[in-house]
Amino acid sequence: MNQDLLLKLLQEVAAGTRSVPDASRQLEHLACQDIGYAQVDHHRSLRKGFPEVIYGEGKTAEQIAGIMECMISQENVVLATRVDAGKAQSLLTRFPSAQYHAEARMLVWRSAPLPAAGRGTILVIAAGTSDLPVAMEAYITAQAMGNRVEQLIDVGVAGIHRLFRHREMLEAARVLVVVAGMEGALPSVVAGMVSRPVIAVPTSIGYGVSLGGLTALFAMLNSCSSNVAVVNIDNGFGAGYVAAMINRA
Amino acid sequence: MNQDLLLKLLQEVAAGTRSVPDASRQLEHLACQDIGYAQVDHHRSLRKGFPEVIYGEGKTAEQIAGIMECMISQENVVLATRVDAGKAQSLLTRFPSAQYHAEARMLVWRSAPLPAAGRGTILVIAAGTSDLPVAMEAYITAQAMGNRVEQLIDVGVAGIHRLFRHREMLEAARVLVVVAGMEGALPSVVAGMVSRPVIAVPTSIGYGVSLGGLTALFAMLNSCSSNVAVVNIDNGFGAGYVAAMINRA
Amino acid sequence: MNQDLLLKLLQEVAAGTRSVPDASRQLEHLACQDIGYAQVDHHRSLRKGFPEVIYGEGKTAEQIAGIMECMISQENVVLATRVDAGKAQSLLTRFPSAQYHAEARMLVWRSAPLPAAGRGTILVIAAGTSDLPVAMEAYITAQAMGNRVEQLIDVGVAGIHRLFRHREMLEAARVLVVVAGMEGALPSVVAGMVSRPVIAVPTSIGYGVSLGGLTALFAMLNSCSSNVAVVNIDNGFGAGYVAAMINRA
Amino acid sequence: MNQDLLLKLLQEVAAGTRSVPDASRQLEHLACQDIGYAQVDHHRSLRKGFPEVIYGEGKTAEQIAGIMECMISQENVVLATRVDAGKAQSLLTRFPSAQYHAEARMLVWRSAPLPAAGRGTILVIAAGTSDLPVAMEAYITAQAMGNRVEQLIDVGVAGIHRLFRHREMLEAARVLVVVAGMEGALPSVVAGMVSRPVIAVPTSIGYGVSLGGLTALFAMLNSCSSNVAVVNIDNGFGAGYVAAMINRA
Amino acid sequence: MNQDLLLKLLQEVAAGTRSVPDASRQLEHLACQDIGYAQVDHHRSLRKGFPEVIYGEGKTAEQIAGIMECMISQENVVLATRVDAGKAQSLLTRFPSAQYHAEARMLVWRSAPLPAAGRGTILVIAAGTSDLPVAMEAYITAQAMGNRVEQLIDVGVAGIHRLFRHREMLEAARVLVVVAGMEGALPSVVAGMVSRPVIAVPTSIGYGVSLGGLTALFAMLNSCSSNVAVVNIDNGFGAGYVAAMINRA
Amino acid sequence: MNQDLLLKLLQEVAAGTRSVPDASRQLEHLACQDIGYAQVDHHRSLRKGFPEVIYGEGKTAEQIAGIMECMISQENVVLATRVDAGKAQSLLTRFPSAQYHAEARMLVWRSAPLPAAGRGTILVIAAGTSDLPVAMEAYITAQAMGNRVEQLIDVGVAGIHRLFRHREMLEAARVLVVVAGMEGALPSVVAGMVSRPVIAVPTSIGYGVSLGGLTALFAMLNSCSSNVAVVNIDNGFGAGYVAAMINRA
Amino acid sequence: MNQDLLLKLLQEVAAGTRSVPDASRQLEHLACQDIGYAQVDHHRSLRKGFPEVIYGEGKTAEQIAGIMECMISQENVVLATRVDAGKAQSLLTRFPSAQYHAEARMLVWRSAPLPAAGRGTILVIAAGTSDLPVAMEAYITAQAMGNRVEQLIDVGVAGIHRLFRHREMLEAARVLVVVAGMEGALPSVVAGMVSRPVIAVPTSIGYGVSLGGLTALFAMLNSCSSNVAVVNIDNGFGAGYVAAMINRA
Amino acid sequence: MNQDLLLKLLQEVAAGTRSVPDASRQLEHLACQDIGYAQVDHHRSLRKGFPEVIYGEGKTAEQIAGIMECMISQENVVLATRVDAGKAQSLLTRFPSAQYHAEARMLVWRSAPLPAAGRGTILVIAAGTSDLPVAMEAYITAQAMGNRVEQLIDVGVAGIHRLFRHREMLEAARVLVVVAGMEGALPSVVAGMVSRPVIAVPTSIGYGVSLGGLTALFAMLNSCSSNVAVVNIDNGFGAGYVAAMINRA
Repeated sequence: MNQDLLLKLLQEVAAGTRSVPDASRQLEHLACQDIGYAQVDHHRSLRKGFPEVIYGEGKTAEQIAGIMECMISQENVVLATRVDAGKAQSLLTRFPSAQYHAEARMLVWRSAPLPAAGRGTILVIAAGTSDLPVAMEAYITAQAMGNRVEQLIDVGVAGIHRLFRHREMLEAARVLVVVAGMEGALPSVVAGMVSRPVIAVPTSIGYGVSLGGLTALFAMLNSCSSNVAVVNIDNGFGAGYVAAMINRA
Repeated sequence: MNQDLLLKLLQEVAAGTRSVPDASRQLEHLACQDIGYAQVDHHRSLRKGFPEVIYGEGKTAEQIAGIMECMISQENVVLATRVDAGKAQSLLTRFPSAQYHAEARMLVWRSAPLPAAGRGTILVIAAGTSDLPVAMEAYITAQAMGNRVEQLIDVGVAGIHRLFRHREMLEAARVLVVVAGMEGALPSVVAGMVSRPVIAVPTSIGYGVSLGGLTALFAMLNSCSSNVAVVNIDNGFGAGYVAAMINRA
Repeated sequence: MNQDLLLKLLQEVAAGTRSVPDASRQLEHLACQDIGYAQVDHHRSLRKGFPEVIYGEGKTAEQIAGIMECMISQENVVLATRVDAGKAQSLLTRFPSAQYHAEARMLVWRSAPLPAAGRGTILVIAAGTSDLPVAMEAYITAQAMGNRVEQLIDVGVAGIHRLFRHREMLEAARVLVVVAGMEGALPSVVAGMVSRPVIAVPTSIGYGVSLGGLTALFAMLNSCSSNVAVVNIDNGFGAGYVAAMINRA
Repeated sequence: MNQDLLLKLLQEVAAGTRSVPDASRQLEHLACQDIGYAQVDHHRSLRKGFPEVIYGEGKTAEQIAGIMECMISQENVVLATRVDAGKAQSLLTRFPSAQYHAEARMLVWRSAPLPAAGRGTILVIAAGTSDLPVAMEAYITAQAMGNRVEQLIDVGVAGIHRLFRHREMLEAARVLVVVAGMEGALPSVVAGMVSRPVIAVPTSIGYGVSLGGLTALFAMLNSCSSNVAVVNIDNGFGAGYVAAMINRA
Repeated sequence: MNQDLLLKLLQEVAAGTRSVPDASRQLEHLACQDIGYAQVDHHRSLRKGFPEVIYGEGKTAEQIAGIMECMISQENVVLATRVDAGKAQSLLTRFPSAQYHAEARMLVWRSAPLPAAGRGTILVIAAGTSDLPVAMEAYITAQAMGNRVEQLIDVGVAGIHRLFRHREMLEAARVLVVVAGMEGALPSVVAGMVSRPVIAVPTSIGYGVSLGGLTALFAMLNSCSSNVAVVNIDNGFGAGYVAAMINRA
Repeated sequence: MNQDLLLKLLQEVAAGTRSVPDASRQLEHLACQDIGYAQVDHHRSLRKGFPEVIYGEGKTAEQIAGIMECMISQENVVLATRVDAGKAQSLLTRFPSAQYHAEARMLVWRSAPLPAAGRGTILVIAAGTSDLPVAMEAYITAQAMGNRVEQLIDVGVAGIHRLFRHREMLEAARVLVVVAGMEGALPSVVAGMVSRPVIAVPTSIGYGVSLGGLTALFAMLNSCSSNVAVVNIDNGFGAGYVAAMINRA
Repeated sequence: MNQDLLLKLLQEVAAGTRSVPDASRQLEHLACQDIGYAQVDHHRSLRKGFPEVIYGEGKTAEQIAGIMECMISQENVVLATRVDAGKAQSLLTRFPSAQYHAEARMLVWRSAPLPAAGRGTILVIAAGTSDLPVAMEAYITAQAMGNRVEQLIDVGVAGIHRLFRHREMLEAARVLVVVAGMEGALPSVVAGMVSRPVIAVPTSIGYGVSLGGLTALFAMLNSCSSNVAVVNIDNGFGAGYVAAMINRA
Repeated sequence: MNQDLLLKLLQEVAAGTRSVPDASRQLEHLACQDIGYAQVDHHRSLRKGFPEVIYGEGKTAEQIAGIMECMISQENVVLATRVDAGKAQSLLTRFPSAQYHAEARMLVWRSAPLPAAGRGTILVIAAGTSDLPVAMEAYITAQAMGNRVEQLIDVGVAGIHRLFRHREMLEAARVLVVVAGMEGALPSVVAGMVSRPVIAVPTSIGYGVSLGGLTALFAMLNSCSSNVAVVNIDNGFGAGYVAAMINRA
């Protein structure tokens, strides 16, 4: 339940347009609601400015639906990540107004257009074409949290002039999310060119000693550019979320 | 060379109070200055809003001094990290106005008091007493970059009520740096309580399967709280730097 | 063969109600019974208070059935773990009175209701919905060993107030089993709140540097709370077993 | 502050033998006491039945002394682990009634003989002579927590008859702590012989692929005996602590 | 080509019963025969006393058949390991006199019964039922190399009396092959009981920190019993081969 | 766009046989061409002497086709690696003049026969039959880059005389590519026999502690022969490419 | 106590030349003797044909002396490994007839010349000069166990003709111990040339990805030659011991 | 013994200016010379075009001197690497005409100025000041092998314009050696700019997840630029050697 909805509810009670028992029913699960296999944290929007996001991996479509069901009554936006095509189909049948982003494997439900929440632009950069799904997860997340987001794909360091052609775009961004697999060198180079925070996302793209993304991760943590912070391998969602937090007005 | 110094120089030339040859001499190393064992990047202040920071490990005191020497003529603040007590002594003799922070192993030289650069407060939290040196590195860095910084030490999760007593301090911060070794659980808990970005710093404190900080690092990257980004093990400097970038007005 | 069955047998011989050759046949495999692909350890119930438990992974349904067959004649409870749905179906046809717990992938056969064996309550806590299968394995095991067991699901550290609402339940338990994946922080927090032993179970839930549960495991072994001992990744069975051993009257 | 001291204090106030301001001063730091570099958790004895234990590694002798100073006023026993001989000497000068156990590198301070707290005997077993320091840490810890403790040294699996000679001692114990380096096989063998919980402690003894104790740790976590739970490498203290928790009357 | 066949050929030439051109054709590939995708090493029997063994993994059935074809003309025994059921079927059609051991995934072709080659008995021991396939690979290999082989299955350390019942069998063996997964403790215990060399084979049986057999491997390499040497994970073939080399008369 | 094509274009403009607008259209994407999911680097042939090579893994057939489409207009050779049989079929339909090498999983398109580019012979050696696919990737790559290439398969160190028989072939090569899995010993032995650079390629062939090729990789990096440099696991393409660079006339 | 000494003692008792109480005193510690910090396993000579060997690492000189003292009364040879120069000096003062091998860091005490125990020659080969200490440990051990031992130093694969010059020496050996660091390729090459068992010993010689000997170890375990078994990194003692077991008449 | 010296010797014999016995003495150790702790490979110059290089680590000054002694009689250049200052001093006393390069820790002895051996320039680039020692090892090695060598220090990717200023120097080189620690990104960027082979050298400079150079190594092996081959961590010598081989006329 976010601050706006909470205020509205209390104002209705004050105005007598909503009965006390009704408001009470609405608020009784504010701390969290126990639905057996999950304790839905309705308080999170108040505490963190954005509702709980459902991590779809390892949950059945039924469990995801159950959690969505009980969030929809209290929130105006619900996100689910790591939702594969099969689960998505079943969820879209149940929540037809939701939108599924296949490449990012995300499901977004909104009760209304989101108000702008960010101060500047968030720029999502991907080193290669194969890094697109992770970049899209960051893109959709940041956008769903009310930000203006732009993207730049396939500007890896093997042909670094491709990056330099977009120098203005880089300098205009308020926060940058840089996604790369293999040797993970792109965040260092980008961060050396801007005066803004860079959130680096290693991907599992590569083979041999890419070690499922560990090499890119470790390279990014060792960046010789100081304005770089890192999230988990393939964690586009986390990068988009942190970028939105930084950009919050 | 930062923007202020550059503008002043050009205005002096325009006003005729500085000769063209003199300005030219001043500017000829703007891209970078080659001193044999280093290419000092004078352009960095203009590009990134803060001059190059000297990484002291693996450099001799003479090399550090040489780089400082050639930065001082162009910058109003110079930082050196990972400077041990021995090198510090020799550098203080040469730069008596510099200040050495023994616990953080940092040397700070300033030509003038720093103007405030941040929008809010940066809060540095350390899980245990043994994490102090890393926390101090973050503290000194953020402070030297013109921020208001506060700290909270020894509030690890084994006695989590110690943390909850400072809830207001947590909620008041604009950015939080959370430093922890061993199981690295503190950033997750802190991030779950606030609506601001958390920069997590794993430390090498612990033994056995703390693996020199790898366990804390991996735990932080796997945080179930989404507003967490991470820097390298024991990298207090990087955390302070990123926090300052985020907090920049 | 457990102590009760052994005593009964000897009493029957003493009373002349069972012939010596018959008793001898019954006892000849007491040390262990060789069935070619296995040496069934009938002595284990006497030695350890609970019969051998069959580890189903890497055994064919026929091998599991063969071992069960020869245990059933000597024990009043038989457990098999890591039994997938296919093998379960074939085993249930052969042992219709057995019960299959699909989520925990366990098969339990009992000749009679189990007498209570524990002194207090064992509480099984899971950090997230995705940790349920491992938590259920601990739950079923401890229950099958004669204990009163309770559970608490989805109380991870990203919304730690969900845990604090159940403080009394935590304090009432005699032993706690805490199951968590990702950063594995929950056992540290729980252990900091109680004066009882906590058995921590890391799960393979997570991605990237969760490293198949290694990160959660290492975090738990590095717990800054001292009343924590740990079992292997996804080893719900072992946690339930140790908890039952601790709780034994 | 433990329950006994708290009750006594409140009774004195009730009886009028202690003034309210005095009691208040005594209680004001109950939650925790901030001494700059540490937040001493005086509430821990109440919450967990035993006061905070000071981890000496990475703390100066002055810091340890400062924490001891402020604990001694509220507790009747104070433990510090990982205290090397140098720090110990300086601390003994300041706290002459404390006792230093050089092999275990522990410092124990007591205001009075400890009342017995355990139900049965805790048996500490070490595989080899080189594992003695870790075994002693477990021994001293369990003893300081009010338990009857016995030990058995150098009974590794290369000559397993040495272990079998002490079968009665093994069967008599209520909890067993088994310490081993190298291949870490001893806990499996011991656990296969008893019906009680075994706390296994891997040590860093060995070379090559002993990997600083990782091999022994992993072997213990993979034990084919189910009544084994494990603590961190060389963590004799943790093993003694958990054993005491299990044995608590 | 082994020594016997070579001698026979040369004697035939000497006796005039085989023409020189014919013998020459037979010998021209003695060093090795190039069949494009392989250089078949016919000289190996002479050099090492046993012909090259075909490693089936990563080779097509056609490639295996091609190599067998060209070995059969020169050897009296041909072994292929890691041959799955599909390839086996196709190979048996082509070489109907060969024998396929499904559990061991081995194919054995013989032109005649093998003469006894070993001095004593080789004993193959497996810790658990799940280790059978690897144990069988060792068994078949040692047998095909002309040795008397015995086996003992499911005598792991969780019920160590099962092993002690076969003490005489252990003491009678000339070489012992001990196969174990999980914590890999069995070779240490067995080696402590005998005065003969023990070849330890780690298996990939286990989960979590069994790490695909690495834990068992490392434990075996760290054995506190000195008469243990180790082969690669799941390398039953290598163990059987080395055992045969040791046992060679 | 390579140097020849560029010169021809400019000469046509100079000669008036090509209009300026037409040439301009041709050159406008010289730096790179943005096709949404990729920034095709047409400048690479000029800069590096060979056009960008398409890494097929993680790209859809449509994406590969799109990139090929826009390269074909500017280059006379296009390579795609890691193209599986399914994608290849779809691409061959679209580019019928391309050639698919199934074993090497490579697609090669040429507008004309390639002019010879190398000074000497490149020799590709594979330790075993199972290493063929990687060796073929190196072979096809070097050949497509205009070199004379030879190969030698199955000459591993277990029968080292097989290698010595080809000593002249080894000594005649200008550059050697040596491919090996398992213990990766072959490059050291080969490099000890020649006075030319050896490019070593570890493969993922093996099991157990071959660790997916890491062991072979590390062995090659530790070669006691000094004329060895190494590429990533299974990176036949990279080895062929570097060899071609070294051999360039 | 070895078989000869035991027989002699019993014969003296039978002959009346030794009193029963005296013999009893001698035999009472046969199973093992408890000296507090060690349980000396006097039974080992009978069981394994060679007395317990003292592992000196992590034991004080006093502890080593104490164990030697109580072995000398019952054995005719005592070995201690990993004894540094300091401890050696103190032990030689106490046991002047012992011999210290500085390079191998071993102490050998004998009551009489050792009878020959082996059937053939054991050959110890070292790849490089830096591997000498480990090779010497194998050499001294095998020799002290009654074997004829020869050695061959610095014949690594970078100049493989150095090895081939000694082909006869290789073929004459009954067992071969091959010691190598770095890429650990030598055992594969040697094993490919002989028909005898090869015990491979990886050493920690090397840097970078030699990983303290792990690379050599893994390479040896992946040997494409089948007659190779491996011991722990730097474990010259174990290799010598296993070789002696294999060579035992 | 190199080709020139060998030819001269044979010509002297032919001309009668050198006696046959004298020449024979000179040549008798051509294959290799056994000096107990080493088999000096005099044949290497003939075979590989450059004599054996002495690896100083783990050898005593006496052993290095012994090997030098016996090489000097047959070669006109002798190199020793990893020679610390202490050993160097003792060696310089014995070989006063040798030259010690302290930063590179190399000793070079020459009987005469070296003839030029390379076709073009070798360029050694280092990312940071701390990488200098490794870069110098490459520099000295390539120079001692008769090449023209240039260097460029401190041009890491955090300020990538420093590199671009030297574009012509990069394009002029025939082979490039690129040395970098931390995230190891520089070789990818450099290789993307040139059409020549790049030998990448990871260094152990960095902390935390630089993992002693593993991260830089893995990043380089995963380079998205194809003209990169890699040597072991800190192996400046190997890089210089391979570069010289590539550049050989």
